[in-house]
Amino acid sequence: MALIVQKFGGSSVADAESIKRVAKRIVETRKAGNEVVVAVSAMGDTTDELLDLAHEVTPIPAPRELDMLLSSGERISMALLAMAISSMGYVARSFTGSQAGMITDAQHGAARIVDVTPVRLREALDDGAIVIVAGFQGFNRDTRDITTLGRGGSDTTAVALAAALDADVCEIYTDVDGIFTSDPRVVPKARKIDRISSEEMLELAASGAKVLYIRAVEYARRHGVTLHVRSSFNNNEGTLVLNDASRNNPGAGEAPMEQPIVAGVATDLSEAKITVVGVPDLPGKAAEIFTIVAKSGGNVDMIVQNVSTAVSGVTDISFTLPKPEAQQVLRALAAEQERVGFSAIQHDDQIGKLALVGAGMRTNTGVSAKLFEALSAAGINIEMISTSEIRISVVTRADTLNKAANVVHSAFGLDGEDEAVVHGGTGR
Amino acid sequence: MALIVQKFGGSSVADAESIKRVAKRIVETRKAGNEVVVAVSAMGDTTDELLDLAHEVTPIPAPRELDMLLSSGERISMALLAMAISSMGYVARSFTGSQAGMITDAQHGAARIVDVTPVRLREALDDGAIVIVAGFQGFNRDTRDITTLGRGGSDTTAVALAAALDADVCEIYTDVDGIFTSDPRVVPKARKIDRISSEEMLELAASGAKVLYIRAVEYARRHGVTLHVRSSFNNNEGTLVLNDASRNNPGAGEAPMEQPIVAGVATDLSEAKITVVGVPDLPGKAAEIFTIVAKSGGNVDMIVQNVSTAVSGVTDISFTLPKPEAQQVLRALAAEQERVGFSAIQHDDQIGKLALVGAGMRTNTGVSAKLFEALSAAGINIEMISTSEIRISVVTRADTLNKAANVVHSAFGLDGEDEAVVHGGTGR
Repeated sequence: MALIVQKFGGSSVADAESIKRVAKRIVETRKAGNEVVVAVSAMGDTTDELLDLAHEVTPIPAPRELDMLLSSGERISMALLAMAISSMGYVARSFTGSQAGMITDAQHGAARIVDVTPVRLREALDDGAIVIVAGFQGFNRDTRDITTLGRGGSDTTAVALAAALDADVCEIYTDVDGIFTSDPRVVPKARKIDRISSEEMLELAASGAKVLYIRAVEYARRHGVTLHVRSSFNNNEGTLVLNDASRNNPGAGEAPMEQPIVAGVATDLSEAKITVVGVPDLPGKAAEIFTIVAKSGGNVDMIVQNVSTAVSGVTDISFTLPKPEAQQVLRALAAEQERVGFSAIQHDDQIGKLALVGAGMRTNTGVSAKLFEALSAAGINIEMISTSEIRISVVTRADTLNKAANVVHSAFGLDGEDEAVVHGGTGR
Repeated sequence: MALIVQKFGGSSVADAESIKRVAKRIVETRKAGNEVVVAVSAMGDTTDELLDLAHEVTPIPAPRELDMLLSSGERISMALLAMAISSMGYVARSFTGSQAGMITDAQHGAARIVDVTPVRLREALDDGAIVIVAGFQGFNRDTRDITTLGRGGSDTTAVALAAALDADVCEIYTDVDGIFTSDPRVVPKARKIDRISSEEMLELAASGAKVLYIRAVEYARRHGVTLHVRSSFNNNEGTLVLNDASRNNPGAGEAPMEQPIVAGVATDLSEAKITVVGVPDLPGKAAEIFTIVAKSGGNVDMIVQNVSTAVSGVTDISFTLPKPEAQQVLRALAAEQERVGFSAIQHDDQIGKLALVGAGMRTNTGVSAKLFEALSAAGINIEMISTSEIRISVVTRADTLNKAANVVHSAFGLDGEDEAVVHGGTGR
């Protein structure tokens, strides 16, 4: 008997009909002889509606109370889901974050899991029940208050439960068929990936692939949890996210396969570029600048520093960061311009980022050359480059990003035969 | 420094604006130097909406999960209320039923309070915080599950908190100015009552007055809690519901007052009458009939048995019960007609019930004579009569009930000078 953890996002439980559909799928998994634990998000837009209500009451809601408010969303969906399962003749019990033993620190709105003590869940499973757990929420032992885990919290709940209960697999249900070699809305020939290493998945998620939250992937990797990302609309196999060893060691009966060089091409239009012009080429100037950026709340992604010429004695430093953070960072830098001694600041929110991700890059030379060649042949200019062991990111003009993604996808032999089907929506 | 418990129903916190208004009133009470504990219902129609959702998922929701679902309603309102207070610069902390120590039995949907351990509330008060508690909900220690208290549960929560914290007063905020001598929609000259004994309040509530739930009044009476029923729309004094001794012993400085004979006239159109015709006049027959009624879920209110004549050897038994229960009781009786040996069943849902309530009846003779006289003078026929020490109830035709209430109200000198203002809506 396997233990399977399943996670359903808000769009999968948006109304009574969807909840019944999800209940049926859960019951099928139980019928197949598995123990089942389900992590569920709030219905549809419930969380956003509760946030709106809070902001109608006060512009800056008290964080403890905001968590109390938002955590009610999952109580609604989990109770309805448990009812739906019960009405099909199966025993189901729902548990809040605190009842499920999701112990977190006290950072309201972005709490980190510090321990998982699923005593009641284990008892319920031993009683033969299907267990439904509120995603996104936890409990702090010291303050005895309810906390929430922030964006993508329900994915993290599912993975943390899978780790604590030593589950065989953690299934993340979504509205797409799995992880794709690229965003099918950008690259029509994108293919579903059958298996991907957690290392590659992390780089893809960090580079803008939206299906899985980076935090959940990190947690799964650290605790050896196997993820299965699949569609809640069909029974197709989705994408297995395996610990690095596993991708190279497929299960018994399968022949070891040659690992493709590149797993996927991620695109991201969510960042802006800031260039600090005419920075004195003195030790410590970069540190000064990025201290200002960090203090003003900027989360820097890529950084490029021009080589200064001996003649000028100054250099330019460019970096990218999420667009919504740009204004506050620009203000902070402007306020310190005189002290740091740079000559100007430029802001550019018309950039696109393309990331090529693949563990095979480690042992394959010439990957970056092939990438630059493909972009050059298509007449696409590269403005910034940054590399890791298994990823190459380049910044282009925003309006050339789609073209760039398609030519790179083709150049690395990722194109599928048919065009991928595109669904809408995201979970939380 | 006084400790005041305040209860706000669903219509008082129906939207963000109402919540801010309630928050302001709470803060005023705090500013006046009081400790404040608030019990709050779910916003507006939230509970009914959640019930509808549950019934969309399954016709018979699992009781444990229904309580989990419904209890989320108060979490939303209490968190928003706490936020609103915080935004006014006062410290507020919200607590769920279980956090507040509302320990109940395990009867989902109609749980009884077995203990109240408000340790965290006392700590929060000692920290100077305003305490907001989710009404209507509790927690069972054995199952560790969330429970709900059923209809009027938030009133009961408030009273139970007032008792456990030894509060000076429990203020029940509503959309009317207090308890009236009669329903102002029925008797336009109804007056607000300034003080009423809990004994009279119990009889009024049991006789159809909807402002306070009988269960909360019972709890208050048993634990010596003083209730103050008042409007959330103005700052007027409402109605004090005092333990019996107090109504006759007003506070220092006030002269002892002559207690009026009658406190109020309640009307009730919610009951139906069933008459079992031709019951053999043998010992045990009434018991047989009411066992059948009870087993089929009928809650009997008034009972009248005709005197049988020696000639016929049979008698008729009439009783009243809530209209929605009539059909199931009729079916159960019909199924047993042969065994019990009665000749027919009559069903009448066009009855009205009038109850005259007043502790002064104990020592004043002639109250019932005056009542019957007033009704007779108005040409109103009395179909059933039932009396307790401080109440006389009569059943009339439904279409004469309003006239009956007005003439009785006048006959006992209850009429006010002006017509009462009528608001709509009820809380839970």
